[in-house]
Amino acid sequence: MLRSKGKQLVFVTNNSTKSRADYKKKFDKLGIPAKVDEVFGSSYSAAVYINRILNLPAPKNKVFVVGESGIEQELDAEGVPHIGGTDPSFRRDIEPEDFNSLADGSALDPDVAVVLTGLDFHINYLKLATAYQYLQRGALFLATNTDSSLPMAHSLFPGAGAVGAGVVKAIGREALSLGKPSQAMMDAIEGKFHFDRSRTCMVGDRMNTDIQFGIDGKLGGTLAVLTGVSKKEEFLAEGASTVPMAYVDCLGDLLV
Amino acid sequence: MLRSKGKQLVFVTNNSTKSRADYKKKFDKLGIPAKVDEVFGSSYSAAVYINRILNLPAPKNKVFVVGESGIEQELDAEGVPHIGGTDPSFRRDIEPEDFNSLADGSALDPDVAVVLTGLDFHINYLKLATAYQYLQRGALFLATNTDSSLPMAHSLFPGAGAVGAGVVKAIGREALSLGKPSQAMMDAIEGKFHFDRSRTCMVGDRMNTDIQFGIDGKLGGTLAVLTGVSKKEEFLAEGASTVPMAYVDCLGDLLV
Repeated sequence: MLRSKGKQLVFVTNNSTKSRADYKKKFDKLGIPAKVDEVFGSSYSAAVYINRILNLPAPKNKVFVVGESGIEQELDAEGVPHIGGTDPSFRRDIEPEDFNSLADGSALDPDVAVVLTGLDFHINYLKLATAYQYLQRGALFLATNTDSSLPMAHSLFPGAGAVGAGVVKAIGREALSLGKPSQAMMDAIEGKFHFDRSRTCMVGDRMNTDIQFGIDGKLGGTLAVLTGVSKKEEFLAEGASTVPMAYVDCLGDLLV
Repeated sequence: MLRSKGKQLVFVTNNSTKSRADYKKKFDKLGIPAKVDEVFGSSYSAAVYINRILNLPAPKNKVFVVGESGIEQELDAEGVPHIGGTDPSFRRDIEPEDFNSLADGSALDPDVAVVLTGLDFHINYLKLATAYQYLQRGALFLATNTDSSLPMAHSLFPGAGAVGAGVVKAIGREALSLGKPSQAMMDAIEGKFHFDRSRTCMVGDRMNTDIQFGIDGKLGGTLAVLTGVSKKEEFLAEGASTVPMAYVDCLGDLLV
């Protein structure tokens, strides 16, 4: 409907487990026409930030990934070298000798310059400890996003922010988040699509990511859809921190 | 030396992976004379709190444990039923069907009333998600301690606080900590030893746990030992938040 009116659509997601190509497949299945280029995920945002903004000189430009294959695919697409992630050698229990080899650095890759945390269904102590050791040695600390929870199976589960929280607590400082509501993501999207912010509307179902993203980005409009984590009561309450300009019960209401 | 002067000694540790009996064995190895009853660990503190203070009526008094065997041993000693912990069925990757059975509650034990997090070298997403689901259903949230880091192999590693941080971030509230510097632990120790606080000295090597514990507990003295995580510069700096009454380079200096 929006497309038939000539509107440019960009699908902006914080889910870091899926690459843009994965999302394209998902949209195909749902019967939603979308191109890979119209999808902007937090993994892609992080990869673009690392490659184009940080632009670290090789060979000291490797990323230690705490996350799933979506992050790895986007880093590959941007030509950023990485370790960790889905590598089976990190999907195991920590052993007594790991403490020694991590402490003396012999288990660490001296070319790692960045720790990037995202949603990781295979999080374990070995990954937490390895990420922490890189950070202690001065690696930059990035996160695809810091969502506390993840809607799944009609319930909520720990999100990327919960997975990364162990590293945050250990090192005592927050990661730079490249997902919503981080404006680093808005800048990256603008860099690619050159849209007019005043004539752009952010549509989303989560106040502290989607709607906050639109407000902080000074977009012309913000539309809340009540099919997700956030409830109407949340932003209709007096003194609510994030208030959308308008809301609809479901996306279908836009068709009316 | 202190013992020969008739001093009562209590060894207070935040390490939740070991039970008091484990510590007794460790002291034996080090040639330090100590009785099990003189050891007060954060796992024991948590078990005492759950059994004697919470004193929940059976059968809805089970504890879901995120932690190692030290916690289980102390809960057993206090007769507190528990699940999770070292149970191999929780030491595995989360599977797609787990999301459904956790979301609809069929994988959950209706008698769980408490989630207790400690240091867990086998932390994984399944444990995070299970703990989070119990908390969402109203379970009490306790932690043996919230130390961000753990000294090991002449380096630092993620501590119990880092392991529990994922659950904290997901649920959006802190756990009640039963370890140093929590005064719940001081009260539990006093309940057992009936000591005179004004004539008691806390000796420790970490400012934000050990020394803070003594200060908050209004003990007569606090003595920092410079063999641990905290450095002299930390408390000698102007405006330092936690300052010991005295300090020594190492415990052996007490013998002089």
